[in-house]
Amino acid sequence: MPPADRIRDHSGHAAATTVAAHRTRRRLRADRARQLADLLRHQLLSGVFADGVLPHESVLAADYGASRNTVRQALDLLRAEGLVQRQPGVGTVVVARKYPHGLDRLMGLAETLREHGQVTNEVRTMGPVPAPAPVAGRLGVPPGSDVLYIERLRRLNGLPLSLDLTYIPLDIGTALLGADLENTDVFRLLEAVAGQPLGHAEITLEAVTADTHSAAVLEAPHGAAVLMLERLTHLADGRPVDLEFIRFRGDRITMSGLLRRSP
Amino acid sequence: MPPADRIRDHSGHAAATTVAAHRTRRRLRADRARQLADLLRHQLLSGVFADGVLPHESVLAADYGASRNTVRQALDLLRAEGLVQRQPGVGTVVVARKYPHGLDRLMGLAETLREHGQVTNEVRTMGPVPAPAPVAGRLGVPPGSDVLYIERLRRLNGLPLSLDLTYIPLDIGTALLGADLENTDVFRLLEAVAGQPLGHAEITLEAVTADTHSAAVLEAPHGAAVLMLERLTHLADGRPVDLEFIRFRGDRITMSGLLRRSP
Repeated sequence: MPPADRIRDHSGHAAATTVAAHRTRRRLRADRARQLADLLRHQLLSGVFADGVLPHESVLAADYGASRNTVRQALDLLRAEGLVQRQPGVGTVVVARKYPHGLDRLMGLAETLREHGQVTNEVRTMGPVPAPAPVAGRLGVPPGSDVLYIERLRRLNGLPLSLDLTYIPLDIGTALLGADLENTDVFRLLEAVAGQPLGHAEITLEAVTADTHSAAVLEAPHGAAVLMLERLTHLADGRPVDLEFIRFRGDRITMSGLLRRSP
Repeated sequence: MPPADRIRDHSGHAAATTVAAHRTRRRLRADRARQLADLLRHQLLSGVFADGVLPHESVLAADYGASRNTVRQALDLLRAEGLVQRQPGVGTVVVARKYPHGLDRLMGLAETLREHGQVTNEVRTMGPVPAPAPVAGRLGVPPGSDVLYIERLRRLNGLPLSLDLTYIPLDIGTALLGADLENTDVFRLLEAVAGQPLGHAEITLEAVTADTHSAAVLEAPHGAAVLMLERLTHLADGRPVDLEFIRFRGDRITMSGLLRRSP
């Protein structure tokens, strides 16, 4: 029996004190396949398979102490995620690439992906709109007063990455109407207009299933997972100036950062 | 025409300098519905609708300057996400609750959700397993040497929240075999066993579609979105001691934090 198949099952409430005391039981292949898929996902997203081709199933089976069937099922999971494909005569090849969006510092998309290529923005809509109460409240403007609304489809090297809905107070927003929004992060424009750097942002991240229309705009498959980022950004002086609702294609973006235990 | 329907469409490359210079064009209702749904999502997840009932469609239409059809389509989007339901004679009610997982400090699940209820863990599997190369490399142990593997389904107040796959070096892991893993965060046990606090963790967050088996284990709908967290946690002295692959139910968890502009 390969090593990964020998893993022991915990009896739940037994408080055994030695490894040997734990019962062994065959785990479902689906559980073993998920475990292997997670390890392979990390490898392929880190670019470990330099030529973009995964080792043969038999090599993976030996390397990971798994059965061939478990390896096949793990590769099926990665294929369903759109990360790999099987190519006749070549094997299993990496077809998706995820780009790392920094979680440690407040950065615009072009800034954080600078080394990965060029970010361009298709401005789908831009103009003043009466601020609904929750927008007005968070941006600190009177409810119903106009704010600038911008809707952008953002691409990296031509590939759709995210759909961004942005609200900006009009006193700052007006100056953005003539700016080069197609090629410039809003963050950078805000700092130029306000004459001061940004300070901080409160963010919330969620995983949601894309609705049909959002998936179509992002050119993503039906039912694709979306990494949803809500972000309220403040200037260095504390004033809130940018409320955003961002849908990232789940298959193209990872958020990476470092957390510390002590505050 | 309601205000939100009057929003202007940007002509793309025109560098107009005044609001008035922007063309107006009817936007797709799907775009307006998404915009409204994002605002309502924030409201309902923040608990603004204290009795759990959303205002009547006509009230929402007036409040948000949207047409009734746009409001209905926005509520459809929230319903598809599993956040609201329509109840005959009552209206649209909030049915899902998302719990905020801190992104600012390294915390275990029970710690971060302390004020929201009791976290319990169903240990599905626990035992030593030969470390595959990528696990060994990241935990700093010889490849093939045994590490402790733990698989837990974690619940908050009985509701499944996450499926966690955990690897721990065996010198520390052995002491965990007799511990109360059902009711205690691994983080806390690691600190007790190691006799020092945790230091930091490298994390990666992704949105993925749950495979059939993972969805079933999490009792989530087929094709549900999952917030996937990969985390390598180090002790205060820098030693890596805990490699985890965590699938959070997207409809039950948000990650919240604060980002600063300057490093």
